[in-house]
Amino acid sequence: MPPHPSKLPGEFDLIARLCAPIRLSSRTILGPGDDCAILSRSRAPILFTIDSLVEGVHFDLRWTPLDALGGRALTVNLSDIAAMGGRPTACVVNLGIRSGLTARMIEQIYVGLRTAARGAATDIVGGNITSARQLTITIALLGESGRSVLRRDAARVGDDIVVTGTLGDADLGWRLLAGKLNARLVARANTKKYRAAKNFLVERFLRPSARLDAGARLARIRPAPAAIDLSDGLMQDLGHILERSRVGAEIEASRIPTSPAYREIVGDDLSHALGGGEDYELLFCVRPGHSEAQLTRRLGVAVHRIGKVVPGRRLKLIGAEAKTSGWDQLRSRS
Amino acid sequence: MPPHPSKLPGEFDLIARLCAPIRLSSRTILGPGDDCAILSRSRAPILFTIDSLVEGVHFDLRWTPLDALGGRALTVNLSDIAAMGGRPTACVVNLGIRSGLTARMIEQIYVGLRTAARGAATDIVGGNITSARQLTITIALLGESGRSVLRRDAARVGDDIVVTGTLGDADLGWRLLAGKLNARLVARANTKKYRAAKNFLVERFLRPSARLDAGARLARIRPAPAAIDLSDGLMQDLGHILERSRVGAEIEASRIPTSPAYREIVGDDLSHALGGGEDYELLFCVRPGHSEAQLTRRLGVAVHRIGKVVPGRRLKLIGAEAKTSGWDQLRSRS
Repeated sequence: MPPHPSKLPGEFDLIARLCAPIRLSSRTILGPGDDCAILSRSRAPILFTIDSLVEGVHFDLRWTPLDALGGRALTVNLSDIAAMGGRPTACVVNLGIRSGLTARMIEQIYVGLRTAARGAATDIVGGNITSARQLTITIALLGESGRSVLRRDAARVGDDIVVTGTLGDADLGWRLLAGKLNARLVARANTKKYRAAKNFLVERFLRPSARLDAGARLARIRPAPAAIDLSDGLMQDLGHILERSRVGAEIEASRIPTSPAYREIVGDDLSHALGGGEDYELLFCVRPGHSEAQLTRRLGVAVHRIGKVVPGRRLKLIGAEAKTSGWDQLRSRS
Repeated sequence: MPPHPSKLPGEFDLIARLCAPIRLSSRTILGPGDDCAILSRSRAPILFTIDSLVEGVHFDLRWTPLDALGGRALTVNLSDIAAMGGRPTACVVNLGIRSGLTARMIEQIYVGLRTAARGAATDIVGGNITSARQLTITIALLGESGRSVLRRDAARVGDDIVVTGTLGDADLGWRLLAGKLNARLVARANTKKYRAAKNFLVERFLRPSARLDAGARLARIRPAPAAIDLSDGLMQDLGHILERSRVGAEIEASRIPTSPAYREIVGDDLSHALGGGEDYELLFCVRPGHSEAQLTRRLGVAVHRIGKVVPGRRLKLIGAEAKTSGWDQLRSRS
């Protein structure tokens, strides 16, 4: 049993210093330094979520820059607010710090955190630091709902199933970093196109962004679409919508959007786009009648219609027999 | 590097099952199961805090019943709301689960969590589970402020310094569990009085309660007292108030309240009452003129006046030279 009580020496000083460069919005009445933060009363319903990144589980410091890690820890939470169509307002940060991490390294994590917070107009209003065996960043985030809320249980039979951006990039980026790609691919590793593709994919993994604007714009469509953010992978996350909405879906493999970089690395193998997580794109189900071009304009981001909500409870993938050999395996492993 | 993506199989099912026995208040529009919880807009300023219990740092499963652990994980957060004079409303729970922990054990943690939440009229509105090397429970808690807020920066020269309950019990309880008490004490370990005292102190450590009622009543006093909850120990926590309020303090050792059980175990040695943490009593600074009896009646809990706020920035302990031999040591270690 380590020493007890377990507060780290100077914890309060450290939190105060880490948070000092942050200018707080007028919504925050009292920031870090007391028992709780105090926020102004909200004018809209409140959104509340928590998520955690754990060393050795979600990241490896051998290939994760600390500022990217800090930004990503907030982004995974921001993405949950985006998927509800809300606007983030304030977060609190719990750090588990292992031996070997210096104050300078923690400061680097906060550099990324503060940049992500500023970009999303989100106040970092409090924190807690404890010792731990793995570096752990747990963030709880508050937001305000938009005109309406995008819920997982709102999909209806006949809805179009649509995704923002391209899928599978983050999974490939992670595999490239971790050396988890098939050996035959590495044969091409010295071409210029391969290196450019790798850089793109690695950045998509290390520095994802949350689709906050697209989510907020989506929440203005009537009736409110069902939505979820793609953190666990298309098939798994779509499964959550189907389960909550008690419907089925047909997805057309040929319509699943992949990036040029994705195709440069794995060609037309859709396994990573279907099963790979952490893209933080939005998946939504909207009443038919919106064209891809209209939605792309309206949401401010490229979208692709990939299928239909159908009666029943099954998720059917059409036309991908030859191209997704790895998907079942990906799925059983996740 | 463990498998990636890192979601545990069946995480959503597990969270849904763990939260299922919870009846949510009408304040909660949408509970667990979506990207975020949705709460009604608040009528008062919002309080927001986060705290974490880490295995091997804050607890040891060899001597911590799992339901007590779950309750304590919420109580340490409730205590922060109490110290602001607020009312808790809703929390989200992040669990880090290591190998060797069964679903049944996690369920036991939730039994304690749900009981503590029910007792504090607090909704458990969401959660996240990840794998980790240590069992880790991180809870973010929301509350609403009362008539006014009890802040650490509100102490003024001349204020009486007052504590609720008795101090040092939890620290002794922890030491008794962990076998960290001086060997000469253990010589008396077989007497009936010793055993009763031990049971009392161990319960104070394992199953603390947050002073929510006393905090809410304290927030009705004008002007609003300064307050903090005693999580790190009297001297350290009082230090936070002095620092934030830019004042000094004189504490009279003879006035520090200890329980009969405390005195049974360590006599008049005040080290544990001064430096031991995790009692979750309230410490507050109030304008003079309230007697102990009046305050005890008003707050619904026994209180003791232990000193005065004075000019300067120093914390002076009067009359404890002989009785606190261990305090400096406790302090340097914490």
